[in-house]
Amino acid sequence: MTGPRGEAFEIMNADATGPVVIVCEHASNHIPDGYDGLGLTCAARDSHIAWDPGAEDVAQGLAEAFDAPMIAGRISRLVYDCNRPPEAPSAIPARSAGIDVPGNAGLSQEARAARIKEVYAPFSQALDDLIEARRRADMPCALITVHSFTPVWQGVPRAVEIGILHDADTRLADAMLAGADPVRAIVRNAPYGPEDGVTHTLRRHGLDKALPNVMIEIRSDLIATAAQQAQITRELSSMLRAALARIGVTGSHDA
Amino acid sequence: MTGPRGEAFEIMNADATGPVVIVCEHASNHIPDGYDGLGLTCAARDSHIAWDPGAEDVAQGLAEAFDAPMIAGRISRLVYDCNRPPEAPSAIPARSAGIDVPGNAGLSQEARAARIKEVYAPFSQALDDLIEARRRADMPCALITVHSFTPVWQGVPRAVEIGILHDADTRLADAMLAGADPVRAIVRNAPYGPEDGVTHTLRRHGLDKALPNVMIEIRSDLIATAAQQAQITRELSSMLRAALARIGVTGSHDA
Repeated sequence: MTGPRGEAFEIMNADATGPVVIVCEHASNHIPDGYDGLGLTCAARDSHIAWDPGAEDVAQGLAEAFDAPMIAGRISRLVYDCNRPPEAPSAIPARSAGIDVPGNAGLSQEARAARIKEVYAPFSQALDDLIEARRRADMPCALITVHSFTPVWQGVPRAVEIGILHDADTRLADAMLAGADPVRAIVRNAPYGPEDGVTHTLRRHGLDKALPNVMIEIRSDLIATAAQQAQITRELSSMLRAALARIGVTGSHDA
Repeated sequence: MTGPRGEAFEIMNADATGPVVIVCEHASNHIPDGYDGLGLTCAARDSHIAWDPGAEDVAQGLAEAFDAPMIAGRISRLVYDCNRPPEAPSAIPARSAGIDVPGNAGLSQEARAARIKEVYAPFSQALDDLIEARRRADMPCALITVHSFTPVWQGVPRAVEIGILHDADTRLADAMLAGADPVRAIVRNAPYGPEDGVTHTLRRHGLDKALPNVMIEIRSDLIATAAQQAQITRELSSMLRAALARIGVTGSHDA
């Protein structure tokens, strides 16, 4: 039961008191020593299959705007994708966006269990602890996860700019969409949705704990520079603040 | 964030040091005050749709045999089924085995969230805490859930006596089946399996934490009396002890 717990994630602003918790599962493309880079080329390791470029910067901006704690993954989703449950084959994909991942091919049950123990279990436990501490302190809490998606998929440019994704609990997503800027292409459950298995964190840490929750997907070409990230952060903060007020999740900063 | 947390579950032998944790989600058919009995007849409330008759007694027998901690649900699965995730409609079924559950019809998102907060969240958190404490103490741990199934389903008698159910991690189930008594009708993933959505606890508390895990389903006519329960408990203890040794999960009592 030993292992490098703590390498899998980082928590920022742990003691912040705002009414949300921010999650960025795919913040890093780091592949720890011992995995031989999963046999990937450097180009593949730098690409969106290994992480969500720009997402962590926006997540940090939102954490500051809401005085919120934030957890970021520190290991590539190709080692273990913390937004997938262990029973999903895509948790440790042998192929992603047409690229083979040699280090993930033909893993034994023991090898899968070791990845879960090294990456998913500590990440999930840390997020559990963060949320449970807030529950015990009777603090309001909504769950917000931040992701980015690649602007071109299988040769086709994507028109959606920001996706507002939800699972069975639609309260926070509905409230955000009701106040969305009509100039932006902001779309419900796009460019993919719960039927694609991307709402695991929402289910596991939001729905399971009866917390309002939403997953924000940002097209990565819109958050490639610091100035762009700041702009999107401002837009999302404004939408979120109104949405949280609409559903009655307010913290000390809104009182 | 207040509410009757603690009413939803009971933990026995919390400080026991054996190498397993026993779970009995459907131990009780209790419907708390305020739900108006979900509008059910007494016959329905006493039937297998509300709980797993006999399962808790066998679970307690196994907990004693392995010096293991055990958690039992204390609220009927018809209020909230702790072996289902919140996104599953069957977590709060509006109909079960052909019987309508009036108190579960047309629930709002807020009402569903309240059920999750009252039943599922505290049960799940308590099991999390039990397992996490063992991890921190570096104690070996396998997860075993105990259920019962009705001997006649839609008019047809069921031949299977004991089901050994698993999800993506088959290690413990494989080891149990390898040593199963050939006289008993012991069957893998029967009378239902992961495709029926019944392996939620295995996924959420076993697979997620890289713990070997298995779900044991016992035909309820085999555990209707104390003598029968004792007999089945002896048979299962023997199978489990050999299986745990085979996969290398051993505790102080086997050292």
